[in-house]
Amino acid sequence: MAIHRFQPNVYYTALGSYEPVLRITNGDTVVTTTVDNAGRDASDQQVTPGGNPQTGPFYVEGAEPGDTLAVRFDKLWPNRHIGRTSTIIASNVVDPYYVAEMPKEHITAEWEFDLEKGTATLVKPDETKLRRLTLPLAPMLGCFGVAPPRGQIISAGTSSTHGGNMDYKGFVAGVTVYFPVFVPGALLFMGDGHAVQGDGEIVGTGIEISFDVQFTVKLLKGKKINWPRAENEEYILTVGNARPLDQALQHATTEMIRWLQEDFGLDARATHILLGQCVEYEVGNVFDPAYTMVCKLKKQLLPT
Amino acid sequence: MAIHRFQPNVYYTALGSYEPVLRITNGDTVVTTTVDNAGRDASDQQVTPGGNPQTGPFYVEGAEPGDTLAVRFDKLWPNRHIGRTSTIIASNVVDPYYVAEMPKEHITAEWEFDLEKGTATLVKPDETKLRRLTLPLAPMLGCFGVAPPRGQIISAGTSSTHGGNMDYKGFVAGVTVYFPVFVPGALLFMGDGHAVQGDGEIVGTGIEISFDVQFTVKLLKGKKINWPRAENEEYILTVGNARPLDQALQHATTEMIRWLQEDFGLDARATHILLGQCVEYEVGNVFDPAYTMVCKLKKQLLPT
Amino acid sequence: MAIHRFQPNVYYTALGSYEPVLRITNGDTVVTTTVDNAGRDASDQQVTPGGNPQTGPFYVEGAEPGDTLAVRFDKLWPNRHIGRTSTIIASNVVDPYYVAEMPKEHITAEWEFDLEKGTATLVKPDETKLRRLTLPLAPMLGCFGVAPPRGQIISAGTSSTHGGNMDYKGFVAGVTVYFPVFVPGALLFMGDGHAVQGDGEIVGTGIEISFDVQFTVKLLKGKKINWPRAENEEYILTVGNARPLDQALQHATTEMIRWLQEDFGLDARATHILLGQCVEYEVGNVFDPAYTMVCKLKKQLLPT
Amino acid sequence: MAIHRFQPNVYYTALGSYEPVLRITNGDTVVTTTVDNAGRDASDQQVTPGGNPQTGPFYVEGAEPGDTLAVRFDKLWPNRHIGRTSTIIASNVVDPYYVAEMPKEHITAEWEFDLEKGTATLVKPDETKLRRLTLPLAPMLGCFGVAPPRGQIISAGTSSTHGGNMDYKGFVAGVTVYFPVFVPGALLFMGDGHAVQGDGEIVGTGIEISFDVQFTVKLLKGKKINWPRAENEEYILTVGNARPLDQALQHATTEMIRWLQEDFGLDARATHILLGQCVEYEVGNVFDPAYTMVCKLKKQLLPT
Repeated sequence: MAIHRFQPNVYYTALGSYEPVLRITNGDTVVTTTVDNAGRDASDQQVTPGGNPQTGPFYVEGAEPGDTLAVRFDKLWPNRHIGRTSTIIASNVVDPYYVAEMPKEHITAEWEFDLEKGTATLVKPDETKLRRLTLPLAPMLGCFGVAPPRGQIISAGTSSTHGGNMDYKGFVAGVTVYFPVFVPGALLFMGDGHAVQGDGEIVGTGIEISFDVQFTVKLLKGKKINWPRAENEEYILTVGNARPLDQALQHATTEMIRWLQEDFGLDARATHILLGQCVEYEVGNVFDPAYTMVCKLKKQLLPT
Repeated sequence: MAIHRFQPNVYYTALGSYEPVLRITNGDTVVTTTVDNAGRDASDQQVTPGGNPQTGPFYVEGAEPGDTLAVRFDKLWPNRHIGRTSTIIASNVVDPYYVAEMPKEHITAEWEFDLEKGTATLVKPDETKLRRLTLPLAPMLGCFGVAPPRGQIISAGTSSTHGGNMDYKGFVAGVTVYFPVFVPGALLFMGDGHAVQGDGEIVGTGIEISFDVQFTVKLLKGKKINWPRAENEEYILTVGNARPLDQALQHATTEMIRWLQEDFGLDARATHILLGQCVEYEVGNVFDPAYTMVCKLKKQLLPT
Repeated sequence: MAIHRFQPNVYYTALGSYEPVLRITNGDTVVTTTVDNAGRDASDQQVTPGGNPQTGPFYVEGAEPGDTLAVRFDKLWPNRHIGRTSTIIASNVVDPYYVAEMPKEHITAEWEFDLEKGTATLVKPDETKLRRLTLPLAPMLGCFGVAPPRGQIISAGTSSTHGGNMDYKGFVAGVTVYFPVFVPGALLFMGDGHAVQGDGEIVGTGIEISFDVQFTVKLLKGKKINWPRAENEEYILTVGNARPLDQALQHATTEMIRWLQEDFGLDARATHILLGQCVEYEVGNVFDPAYTMVCKLKKQLLPT
Repeated sequence: MAIHRFQPNVYYTALGSYEPVLRITNGDTVVTTTVDNAGRDASDQQVTPGGNPQTGPFYVEGAEPGDTLAVRFDKLWPNRHIGRTSTIIASNVVDPYYVAEMPKEHITAEWEFDLEKGTATLVKPDETKLRRLTLPLAPMLGCFGVAPPRGQIISAGTSSTHGGNMDYKGFVAGVTVYFPVFVPGALLFMGDGHAVQGDGEIVGTGIEISFDVQFTVKLLKGKKINWPRAENEEYILTVGNARPLDQALQHATTEMIRWLQEDFGLDARATHILLGQCVEYEVGNVFDPAYTMVCKLKKQLLPT
């Protein structure tokens, strides 16, 4: 259960079977950093081309297709004081006829962080009616996952069963995320930190920021899952990535049904009754080629 | 600002320009009841055919097309001790291939309420691993709205710009809902109470129950909106009803953009920046012919 | 088997249980007219408000819920020499980002017909590179159907199981269309003639025109169908109306499977093998609230 | 303008920047073969794992990102006498509730070809009411395309801007297909021949067969396109690959608008008028993760 301090010097804008940057073992912890979506690091210098450049891949010894990799985020925190957002809601998020009425000029908004107080303040533009809008930091990782199946290399701009660019604001420190393992070593990637993000990532960005990251992996040998799963103190949750949102919701719901029946000993009828009155959904992204829907259930409702 | 006590003796399973059951005035309050989705009343007797039978329509004096009708729910509370739910997740909510693996036999679950404690307890079946699962009551109205435009009469099983069967669990006591007025008198309908409901109403029912209802109307003359809006203490919210969920989300988001720009004095750029990092979405129903997506913003974020 | 000559003097812009304009009997033929989408008649005068005004409803004696009504179009032909089209592709038919790049000013194009030669010629604007584009007439009915179920009255701008605004260019003279009967008398409506139409009705109009119409009804007692069906000399076809197009296709395909199994004696396996390699699809409209997909099979492939 | 005879000995089940198997030049012709979807060759022996194994990639000298690669299929013809199909319509193609009523047992149907007469005959099962159904051969290529952008390697089971598994029955001998070039050499792949295929590939297969293929490439330097385009004698056509079908249709329509405006000198208004009344759509696949919609226009309608 080693602790690895890893300073990345190569970044990938797609997830696939690239040469691992570090080999780690079940139970190990990694302390590392991620650059922002545009490739800028802790000193706000561009060190790699943009496009959600990923730190990794980390090779987990012993991971084989058919296993599950658990990744616990111990720490996700901005490592600089400035973040940026786009400022036009995506054309696919509004009524088609309304697109013509929207702002056309792409400008970048800037936000300054008070990392002590845990706040982000809009500093540019600061002359709108929002003035210096201040929001509480809620740091989350936008894009992370494992190498996909079938030898594929998939852009860090989209997502699927292997994770990827899910942009779900619930992926914060303290959450454990479970991925299906498709290739030997699993090959874990991560990047695209957001200091704050609205549901849906509807402007195409959160407050984009470089991160200090600490995570710990666990390998669940022989445990097979179909879609990313996760848990935090209060909830278990499943993730579906697809378009339209309806299909993402179908994936997430089916995975939750399976989870309840396989791991919590509920029969089908009990599962359906329970989810029917207690399921919760959250929207991950509705910006990327694949949308993300999260299906949640309170842990206190699980049979003991 | 009269208080009307109204005992319904006719119910409609569609929303349209039926003969009003009561004429009320801006500021009036109505104390009435609704039957459950299957037409059963406070004594659990079927008094009308099923299909979300609606109490109403209430004619609001002075309401004209182009106005907005505000409906505040002062009280929504079960008026009997038993509610029922379906027990099979809808086939459109899971992966298509998975439908063949689901329970096929439709049985009805029964729940008993402790209206003092505010709980619902599963009493039938009670032999599953859920045993006598007890949930807190969270009474909400599944289907309500006004007469639709163009002389239409639209089933209480679906929804559109006029409201209808939105099945959003946030429509609880204390919420004020705003509807576009399409016909003289607006013609307000309501029914389909749920004692509890999961997001999406994925089994096709909440815990279906007859309600004691008290509501108060306000007429906003000359105020034009396109989709239902609402507010509670913490949030303003907009509602989109359509399929796929993507389109419902487009409707709700566009309506929120309009609201912020028209009523809160935000210019387009400020609106987009604010929603980009602060918008929240909730899933209403994903069961009915039209799905429902809710777009929310915290009131504390609104410019003063 | 009477022939009725019927001159309409009232038109409805929704389909529902309005007072019948004429009562007809199984086997009867009706010779009548329809106005264009904007309510203009054979003399190009506006005689009723726009919105696909419908001729009818025609009450078919003996038709009861659970029956099927067959409508054969004996004649569909423009009864004036000028038709009109919109000239902007609908915003929902192009990539969302592209909407901002499209023409904004709505102008109306005019087409003149040579009813002898059977052609339509663009006469306004005639200075584009299309010049006086001439197309062969292919007259079809955009909106027709029966009264919907559940006491509903549904806009002639959309469609569902009862037919309505399907805007499918295959609905030409010589086709027999089958509708489920939902109310006594079936209540048949028709309107919205197009002299020419592209697939999808992507500008929101065909070449809009008033029609001379002759049709003959047949009543199939006790024959239950779920969605409109039709046949012409070469094909049998089924129609699904919904959004997204995927769902319209699901409706149409399911109805075709049922048809083959119920009426042509194919078992499930044979049905799936046959459709798998021989099914054809056509796009009706992708403009209206409900899209239309048509599922076709060549008659020569049917078992004898 | 060499003619290369190329016998593949390696196959890829994804499209990406693999080592080229052959370098060819603008104007060159290649005579080669493809194995069927399951990896079986002309002798019906499995020579590589299944999953639409691709012949190629072919490196086209001088092709650079931003160019367009034209591929003309000179010949596509089965090189053996037996083909196979699946026999269950995909669960995503029927109404969700109907999935439970469908056949569950996956069996494989077999078809024998008379390559002289140009027919395929169902030989197994041959005891259904279809008996020995005989269909005319209509050989088409299901999956072909170029290496995708951003270093991606994308499964031969899906499709996007680079082509891939489009399963459009119009991709027959005589058609020229245009692809955007994303990587040096373009890297052309091809496989998944179908002797016959219904629209939508709704059972997940055409009549799967190994092919003799002859194709000729042309390089259009500096010609930028966004989605695959094609032409045959009668039509120009564009291809959109995405889910839902609505989005595939948006991609294809937008690409057609661009093509007409950029290459045929039509202004926007003329383009919209022309497509409005003359556009045609065809459904490629509705089985794969990305669906395929084809937008067509008759060449005789193009300005000269």
